[in-house]
Amino acid sequence: MTSGGDTGLAGLAETLRHFAEERDWQQFHTPKNLAMALAGEVGELLAEFQWLTPDESARVMTDPEHGARVRAELGDVVIYLTRLADLLGVDLVEAATDKLAEAARRYPAETARGTATRARHA
Amino acid sequence: MTSGGDTGLAGLAETLRHFAEERDWQQFHTPKNLAMALAGEVGELLAEFQWLTPDESARVMTDPEHGARVRAELGDVVIYLTRLADLLGVDLVEAATDKLAEAARRYPAETARGTATRARHA
Amino acid sequence: MTSGGDTGLAGLAETLRHFAEERDWQQFHTPKNLAMALAGEVGELLAEFQWLTPDESARVMTDPEHGARVRAELGDVVIYLTRLADLLGVDLVEAATDKLAEAARRYPAETARGTATRARHA
Amino acid sequence: MTSGGDTGLAGLAETLRHFAEERDWQQFHTPKNLAMALAGEVGELLAEFQWLTPDESARVMTDPEHGARVRAELGDVVIYLTRLADLLGVDLVEAATDKLAEAARRYPAETARGTATRARHA
Repeated sequence: MTSGGDTGLAGLAETLRHFAEERDWQQFHTPKNLAMALAGEVGELLAEFQWLTPDESARVMTDPEHGARVRAELGDVVIYLTRLADLLGVDLVEAATDKLAEAARRYPAETARGTATRARHA
Repeated sequence: MTSGGDTGLAGLAETLRHFAEERDWQQFHTPKNLAMALAGEVGELLAEFQWLTPDESARVMTDPEHGARVRAELGDVVIYLTRLADLLGVDLVEAATDKLAEAARRYPAETARGTATRARHA
Repeated sequence: MTSGGDTGLAGLAETLRHFAEERDWQQFHTPKNLAMALAGEVGELLAEFQWLTPDESARVMTDPEHGARVRAELGDVVIYLTRLADLLGVDLVEAATDKLAEAARRYPAETARGTATRARHA
Repeated sequence: MTSGGDTGLAGLAETLRHFAEERDWQQFHTPKNLAMALAGEVGELLAEFQWLTPDESARVMTDPEHGARVRAELGDVVIYLTRLADLLGVDLVEAATDKLAEAARRYPAETARGTATRARHA
């Protein structure tokens, strides 16, 4: 499906808003609760990788069943992240772009090459 | 800035790929490691909400300093999530749209109204 | 059962070590993997609280079924935390006591009364 | 210090209760909030391991500075976990022992040897 790519995050946010309204779930969707739900889904994503070696994790999508579970967990993460950002009025790509610009200043390419402590920060 | 909205997640993924290559960080960016980094950033996001009441969390962006911290944490979350999805070859919006279609089948609007146990699933 | 209280964390650590050896699971039990497993279980614990109001969360154990799920998730968290600390050679209660002594110095009772920003730190 | 080992988790729980009362922090210490704080600290623990290989993670305590950070993060995790369990009236070692007994039934040593999918469950 390309519709996802076409509408992007803004379209997804609108769909999620409608989805919650239809079910009268806005009452549960406070930023606090949605941050918890996001963390819960990220925990399920971690569980898909926890016993894999780094190399195995790089090949996880070649296993159809495991790959489908990883993709589904990523979908859940995006759902709660997008819903949370919509409620907060934050543009996720802009927020990421600003953080990346900050990281670029802190870790110039020429000095940060191949150092894990740096890798943490972007 | 509108560039974020224009290029969207695909543009961000490409920028992040370039950012990692310039710093020779691909060696650290296995899906396993990136899932951990994502979870670490989500933990920092949770910390911004943990002592707030649900109502306070709904007003968090009205506090310029606290709001800026929340936006910055969301940016970090998106950076690692986008980098992880790029390595796995997953379209995040499509993965979310597919999960949402599944949730719509499981929880028809007419039967799921206002029930928290349902709210968990979308 | 009181044996839990009697043997305490040290007894549990020994039981878990034996449990892993019997199943040849030491190969999977690196600190990195166990930290991920711990985070995954904490995510499941969060999911039990995410749609509850703070007041509802304070009464969660009065619901036999929900309370049993919370207790079971806490059990999973303790299993991985104890296994991780055993591999690292860290005494969990001592590590907590040291952190608490530090917090007591940073936040003297007389000055820290009732402030949420402080509450974060212990 | 051996006091930690002597008093164990029960002593720590009592100390934490007193610590919160002195600072009037009980108002913030709902199970929901403490579960979030626990997850936030586990996120910081993950961050200490995210760029390490599994082998490097097994040697982390040999680096005095990194080892001290890991031990401190474990201390924070135990503080919130113990405080949460105290409020819920759950004996953590008993809850873990019960979960482990369940895992022992589900994964008999003779059939579960060396299988990662099993390793997830204890």
